[in-house]
Amino acid sequence: MSKTIAINAGSSSLKWQLYQMPSETVIAKGIVERIGLADSIFTIKYGVDQKEEKILDIPDHEVAVQMLLDDLIELQIIQSYDEITGVGHRVVAGGEYFKDSTIITDDVLAKIEELAELAPLHNPANAMGIKAFKHILPNIISVAVFDTSFHTTMPAVNYMYSIPKEYYQKHGARKYGAHGTSHRFVSERAIEFLGKPAEETKIITCHIGNGASITAVKGGQSVDTSMGFTPLAGVTMGTRSGDIDASLIPYLMRKEGIEDVNDFIDILNKKSGILGLTGISSDMRDIQKAAASHNEDALLTIQIYADRIRKYIAQYISVMNGVDAIVFTAGVGENAAYIREAVLEPMSWFGIKLNKTVNNLIHGEEAEITAPDSKVKVFVIPTDEELVIARDVQRLGQKLN
Amino acid sequence: MSKTIAINAGSSSLKWQLYQMPSETVIAKGIVERIGLADSIFTIKYGVDQKEEKILDIPDHEVAVQMLLDDLIELQIIQSYDEITGVGHRVVAGGEYFKDSTIITDDVLAKIEELAELAPLHNPANAMGIKAFKHILPNIISVAVFDTSFHTTMPAVNYMYSIPKEYYQKHGARKYGAHGTSHRFVSERAIEFLGKPAEETKIITCHIGNGASITAVKGGQSVDTSMGFTPLAGVTMGTRSGDIDASLIPYLMRKEGIEDVNDFIDILNKKSGILGLTGISSDMRDIQKAAASHNEDALLTIQIYADRIRKYIAQYISVMNGVDAIVFTAGVGENAAYIREAVLEPMSWFGIKLNKTVNNLIHGEEAEITAPDSKVKVFVIPTDEELVIARDVQRLGQKLN
Repeated sequence: MSKTIAINAGSSSLKWQLYQMPSETVIAKGIVERIGLADSIFTIKYGVDQKEEKILDIPDHEVAVQMLLDDLIELQIIQSYDEITGVGHRVVAGGEYFKDSTIITDDVLAKIEELAELAPLHNPANAMGIKAFKHILPNIISVAVFDTSFHTTMPAVNYMYSIPKEYYQKHGARKYGAHGTSHRFVSERAIEFLGKPAEETKIITCHIGNGASITAVKGGQSVDTSMGFTPLAGVTMGTRSGDIDASLIPYLMRKEGIEDVNDFIDILNKKSGILGLTGISSDMRDIQKAAASHNEDALLTIQIYADRIRKYIAQYISVMNGVDAIVFTAGVGENAAYIREAVLEPMSWFGIKLNKTVNNLIHGEEAEITAPDSKVKVFVIPTDEELVIARDVQRLGQKLN
Repeated sequence: MSKTIAINAGSSSLKWQLYQMPSETVIAKGIVERIGLADSIFTIKYGVDQKEEKILDIPDHEVAVQMLLDDLIELQIIQSYDEITGVGHRVVAGGEYFKDSTIITDDVLAKIEELAELAPLHNPANAMGIKAFKHILPNIISVAVFDTSFHTTMPAVNYMYSIPKEYYQKHGARKYGAHGTSHRFVSERAIEFLGKPAEETKIITCHIGNGASITAVKGGQSVDTSMGFTPLAGVTMGTRSGDIDASLIPYLMRKEGIEDVNDFIDILNKKSGILGLTGISSDMRDIQKAAASHNEDALLTIQIYADRIRKYIAQYISVMNGVDAIVFTAGVGENAAYIREAVLEPMSWFGIKLNKTVNNLIHGEEAEITAPDSKVKVFVIPTDEELVIARDVQRLGQKLN
C-alpha cells in the first residue's frame, strides 16, 4: 500500500490531491494560494467533510510543499513521509517531445524548462512544483504528465497551419492542443461504454470549463483538437476569444491605441470570450441567470457559445468521417444542461436525438443523455485529471521495478 | 437595346466587360494593367477570338477609361458613347451599410470612401474607377455592387467575434465576408437545379479560386461565411493563411525579429497559404504537378487544402442543420476535379456520394457530380460576377424609370 500525490502548480498556487493506491481513494486534497504574496491561503480537505484553512505568509513553492507534508502528519493522515511513494506533476506544454508521461530526471526537467517558450506562464510554474518536491522528497518516483501528450498522435494535416513552413521547422509553430489528460480520460471511459474495440471507435470529447476544447478521438487516439499553438484558439471560452480573424489585431490596436501586440493578445486571453461579449462575468452560471432575466447580451452569448462548440463537433465528424459518441465534461460540460441542449438540439440532421428529460437531470454524474434510437450517443462523463496523474505515477513506477 | 459595362478596378488595374442588354451577350472585354507605372498593358478581346494588346504609359484610371471607350469606337464595337447606358462597379467593402447594390450618388461615393477602413487596398481603387466613369460618362446610370451585400443577412450569432462587444459597437469589428456576388450567383443557379421553393433550400457554396470562401445559404440568404472581418480568414488559399491561432503572431514576430504587426499580417496575406506551405507556387495547378512528382510538401498541402474546405462544409451543415446541395465554383472549384474529390470522398457518412467518372470530366462547365442516390447533391457551377453586375445595373435602372 502506497500513497501518491498529484500536483498542479501555478505561478502562485499549488493544487494537490493525495491518493491511496492502487485503490485510487482520495485521502486528502487541498490548495495553496497566493504563494509569494502577503496572506497566502492554505486549505486542506480530508476525512468526511473535514476542512482546515489557514492564512499566513508562504514565500515559495518549497515552503508550501513542506507545510502540506507537515500538515498531513499533524492531522494524522500519514504517519511519515515514507508512505508517499510517488508524486505526479501536471505540465502544460510537452511540445512534440513528450509523447507520454515521463519519469522526471534532470534532463527531463531541463527540457520542461526549455519548453517554457510554448507556455511562458505555465511551464516555469510547473517546474517550481517539481523542484520543491525533488528537494523535500528526493527519493520518491516523480512523474510529469503533459497536457499535450495525448495530442501528439495528431497527423500533420491537422496540426500544420497554412503559414510559411519554415516557421514550423525553425520555431515549432504548429497546433499542440491542451486538456489532453482530460480528453484521454473521458474518451477511454466512453470506449468502455460503447463496448466495441477501441480501434473501431470515433469519439468527440468536449472539455467545456472556463477553458474549453473539443477533440476528435479516432481509435482511441487524438487526431484533431480545437486549441492550437496555445489555448487561445478554438471555441468561445470564459475570457478567451477562441478563433478570430488575425486582421482584427492591427485594426483594433490602431483604433484602441494599443502599441504592443502582446497587450492585445492579453485582451484576447483575459477580457474576451463570454466576459467580453456580455460585460457581466466569465462564469456561464452568471450568464444563464442574466439570460433568464432576458438580458440580450447574455442570450446572444449563449447562442454564440453553443454555436462554436457545435461547429467544432461538426468539423470533427468530417475529420473522422463519422462519430459514435460525443462526450461532455468539465465544469460547464458536466453541469450546464441548457448548454448541452443548445449545442445538440439543432443537430437532428446528424442523427443526434437528445433525451431532454434525462439531460435536464444530469449535473456532474455519468450518463447517456441521448434517446435509445439516436444514431450518435451523447455521454456526460465527469473528468478526473488528478486520477490520471496518480495512475500514470503508478504505471511508470511499475515499469521501473 | 442598350449596353452595360461591368468594372472591377484595382489600384493599378481596370478589368471590364461590355454587355448587350437585356440579351446578356458579352460584346467585348479587357483589362488595363500597370496603370500609373511605366509600360502599362492595355488588352481587349472582342468578336470571335479577336484580340488587341498595346503597351504604353497610362497615368491614371481616367485615362484608362478614356482609352477603352475610344478603342470601342475605333474597333467599331460601338458607334457612340450614347450606346452605353449603364456602368456597374464592383466594390469590395460595403460594411453593414450597403445591403444591396446601389445607384451611386455623391453620398454613396463618400460612404464607399469612408468604408476604405474595412478594405484599405480595395475601396479606394474601386472609388477611382467610379470617379473616372463619372467624369467621362456623367449621365449614365452608375451602380455599385458590393462583395459584402449578400452576407448582410448573416445573423449576429455568426458574425460576432467573442471579443469585447464595444469593439463591434465602436469599430465595426465583425465578420463581413466576401465573394458575395459569386456566392449569390451560384446559389441562385443551384436553387433552380434543386427545383424546390427557394425558402426551403439549404446550400453550401464553395468559391475556391486564388482567394477562397465557403458560404452557408439558407432559404436563398447567406447565413454564415468563412471569410471574416477581412478576406484573410477561413480556408487555406493561394497566399493567405486562413484561420490561425492569434498567439502565433507575437511568438513568430519575436522569433523572426519583425517589429510591426502589419508586416506580419502582410506575410499571412501574401506569403502563406499553399505558397507558404510548399515554397513552390500559389497556383494549385503547380502544386498538383509537384504532387504528381511525389513532392511531399505538395502532397501534404493538397491534404490540408481539402481538409480546411471539408471542415467548413461540415460546419455549415451544422449551421443549417442539413444541406441539399454543395456547389463548387471559381478557378480551382470549377476546374480541379482532384481537389473536389479530395474534399468529398471522405464524407460518405454525410451521405455524399461522388460520381468520380463525371467529376473527372468536369472542367469549367455546369454539372451535377454526385451519384443519383447521393443524399446531398454536389454541383459545379461556373461563377460570373460580371454578369451579376450587369444585371444589377439593369435591375436598378428599371426601378429608376
